[in-house]
Amino acid sequence: MMHLNAFLMSSGHHEAAWRLPESDPYADVDVRHWVNLARIAERGKLDSLFLADGPALLRGIEFRPTGQLEPTILLAILAAATSHIGLIATASTTYNEPYNLARRFASLDHVSGGRAGWNIVTTAGRDAARNFGLGDRPDHLDRYRRATEFVEVSRKLWDSNLATQASWGEGSRPATASGDDARVADKARGRYVDPAKVRAIGHRGEYYRVEGALNVPRPPQGHPLLVQAGSSGDGKDFAARYADAVFTAQQTLADAQQFYADLKARVALAGRDPATVKILPGIVPILGSTEAEAQRKAQELEDLIVPEFGLGQLSEILEVPVDRLVLDAPLPDDIPDSAAIEGAQSRSSLIVNLARRERLTVRQLIGRLGGGRGHWTFIGTPEQTADVLEEWFESGAADGFNVMGAALPSGLEDFVDQVVPILRARGLFRTDYEGRTLREHYGLTAPSPVPAR
Amino acid sequence: MMHLNAFLMSSGHHEAAWRLPESDPYADVDVRHWVNLARIAERGKLDSLFLADGPALLRGIEFRPTGQLEPTILLAILAAATSHIGLIATASTTYNEPYNLARRFASLDHVSGGRAGWNIVTTAGRDAARNFGLGDRPDHLDRYRRATEFVEVSRKLWDSNLATQASWGEGSRPATASGDDARVADKARGRYVDPAKVRAIGHRGEYYRVEGALNVPRPPQGHPLLVQAGSSGDGKDFAARYADAVFTAQQTLADAQQFYADLKARVALAGRDPATVKILPGIVPILGSTEAEAQRKAQELEDLIVPEFGLGQLSEILEVPVDRLVLDAPLPDDIPDSAAIEGAQSRSSLIVNLARRERLTVRQLIGRLGGGRGHWTFIGTPEQTADVLEEWFESGAADGFNVMGAALPSGLEDFVDQVVPILRARGLFRTDYEGRTLREHYGLTAPSPVPAR
Repeated sequence: MMHLNAFLMSSGHHEAAWRLPESDPYADVDVRHWVNLARIAERGKLDSLFLADGPALLRGIEFRPTGQLEPTILLAILAAATSHIGLIATASTTYNEPYNLARRFASLDHVSGGRAGWNIVTTAGRDAARNFGLGDRPDHLDRYRRATEFVEVSRKLWDSNLATQASWGEGSRPATASGDDARVADKARGRYVDPAKVRAIGHRGEYYRVEGALNVPRPPQGHPLLVQAGSSGDGKDFAARYADAVFTAQQTLADAQQFYADLKARVALAGRDPATVKILPGIVPILGSTEAEAQRKAQELEDLIVPEFGLGQLSEILEVPVDRLVLDAPLPDDIPDSAAIEGAQSRSSLIVNLARRERLTVRQLIGRLGGGRGHWTFIGTPEQTADVLEEWFESGAADGFNVMGAALPSGLEDFVDQVVPILRARGLFRTDYEGRTLREHYGLTAPSPVPAR
Repeated sequence: MMHLNAFLMSSGHHEAAWRLPESDPYADVDVRHWVNLARIAERGKLDSLFLADGPALLRGIEFRPTGQLEPTILLAILAAATSHIGLIATASTTYNEPYNLARRFASLDHVSGGRAGWNIVTTAGRDAARNFGLGDRPDHLDRYRRATEFVEVSRKLWDSNLATQASWGEGSRPATASGDDARVADKARGRYVDPAKVRAIGHRGEYYRVEGALNVPRPPQGHPLLVQAGSSGDGKDFAARYADAVFTAQQTLADAQQFYADLKARVALAGRDPATVKILPGIVPILGSTEAEAQRKAQELEDLIVPEFGLGQLSEILEVPVDRLVLDAPLPDDIPDSAAIEGAQSRSSLIVNLARRERLTVRQLIGRLGGGRGHWTFIGTPEQTADVLEEWFESGAADGFNVMGAALPSGLEDFVDQVVPILRARGLFRTDYEGRTLREHYGLTAPSPVPAR
């Protein structure tokens, strides 16, 4: 069975979506908009929804909505508005403290009944660094070393407090917050918990010293689902060690197959079962009842792009001064090699390859990137979309997909109402939820707690 | 009119409340328990509810529930379950980054439609320090200097992004998240916002360098309600500069009057209108339909106290080794002077004074503190309770009260159903909400944004 995640983004993933007549340009901070999206995704029985994030104002505020509600707060609201769908938020290991963040995701897992997921990012942007007392971002390698230790500490913290369910780890039973857990809760004797089950972690590492224990009992899922989305070498190795699911941007079937095989091999090398790491390439589906209608929709969006904005975005990702980018010329030949880039290495390399492979001018490249910032845009009928998803799924390119509506809510609504039923008819996607937790939707069990020291 | 805040705490403020036959010992991490409490408080038309917090496991896990869901996550859930009541969470200025925390409270204010409040604490505990790479907590003065800069940065950040409502500051209009705000949102021209209204703050101070702007538009309330609860000299001066409301522990009318007069004078000295800072002493009401019944309830709770736990608590707050505390003797004479204490100065001094004034043995002191950790416990009928609240309110001791149910939900239910109607009949408390935002409940307007630099 395929896994489907709804990647949500205010008025849509297309940078000009807010300009469509039907778009609410204030959707970014309107909780009703987000609740509506979550309910559409849950109506489609999707595995999860996902909110990207970074602790800095996005560039180009003149040209598009940039309000970003803090995603764990927003997910708590969406937890209250839904009952089954998984809730995944990005959070940075560079600009948070492990005790605070591990606690926040444990809390989200408790209040949602085991539906929390954490997309672990190291935060490539320079603007974020300047909001946290740094002159520039830490370099790529340093960020990943820190992320590794951060996740190790978080896992120890989640396992440090077994006050709710010491019996977890034997299976993937969801939390009930009462009844069958292992707290003593002996009212007559006045003994609440066995202190041996709540232990300091005494972590002393290169970046962090954290004593513990966590002041939130072990989450219903054991650990929240861990997601990783960086596709650099460092990113892939990190995913191989820790990720339960991987979001990735792939422009072609061949690239996606290569990425899939590479990552699964790294997972095996890390001593884990490759089947327990789900790989979900992003797709921006632009749907029409005929191919011509879909093309018209795509063109309508492309015509609304403000080139000035696209130039700024491209300059930032490729780390090239904006005055070196000429709209009706190809990319300059001397774009820095991605390995020299301290920011988002894999995305930068994907964009340069796309431009060179298809001999695009900068203006054409901006048009191609407008929909999903480097993610694969597919323009066609629901049937054609289902075909291509099936092809990728059956040919070793994907365990599922990260569905990115170009305009929202319409892009998600169309996918849920028109593509999902076809996938279902073909036996490729569930007709209803079978479990209650996010890990269960992804076919994963709760990790066993490490023994207390 | 009196202001009433419901201070919530898992099975109740009394340390032994979880041992009552009717208590759910798993309430601490059960979202249904918290939703129930929030709805009871809203049914009573209380101004707000409040969650205390600290980023460390509480001591005495053997003896009571200690799970603490991260409070901004929990408040987001409670926002979804209620429509009017204010939502106040404690967060530490010592163990957070201003960009992250200012953003989290701005987000909570957006998703709740202007109902967020932040109880600013510097976190006195040693255990917290050890979860954040420190060997010991920073000293008292250093914590307050950091807190001051932290709040200054937060206020600048909230004022840095006027993308939603540049017209805010003219009154206290609640957010509509659409319609009447000042974003350009010019779909035809492709211009979203006037960049002059979203400005970096360029803060460079002693503890923080924060470039800004915030990636969340100015909150519906302008700034979330700011609450302060430290009663040391540093704490009072901090409250005088920044607080909209003050929570305080006072054991006698005379002490409360003195605190009230002192704090209001400091507010005036800081150049602010004393009427705009609301002072709410805590009260643990133990209610019975007769005085004897109330006394029986109090005795039932006191009998459930585990002295071993109380000794540990006392030792921690007073910074005295536990083996120097003898249950059936008075406190040792040489308890450190509160000014020498780097932790919670005002609470420590309150406890020593209480013990000496009433010549209590350690065992008796533990009994007196069991209900509210130093807060005033009042045992009586609903009528007697209303009388004493009216007396404090009318005699310059309080603008309202921080209501702390000894056992929950019963302690809050009894107060809302039995005491609030009496206060209402006397014209001392509202019969319904008149505004939508937390600031409106407290009779406060949204602060004007500082002009962009």
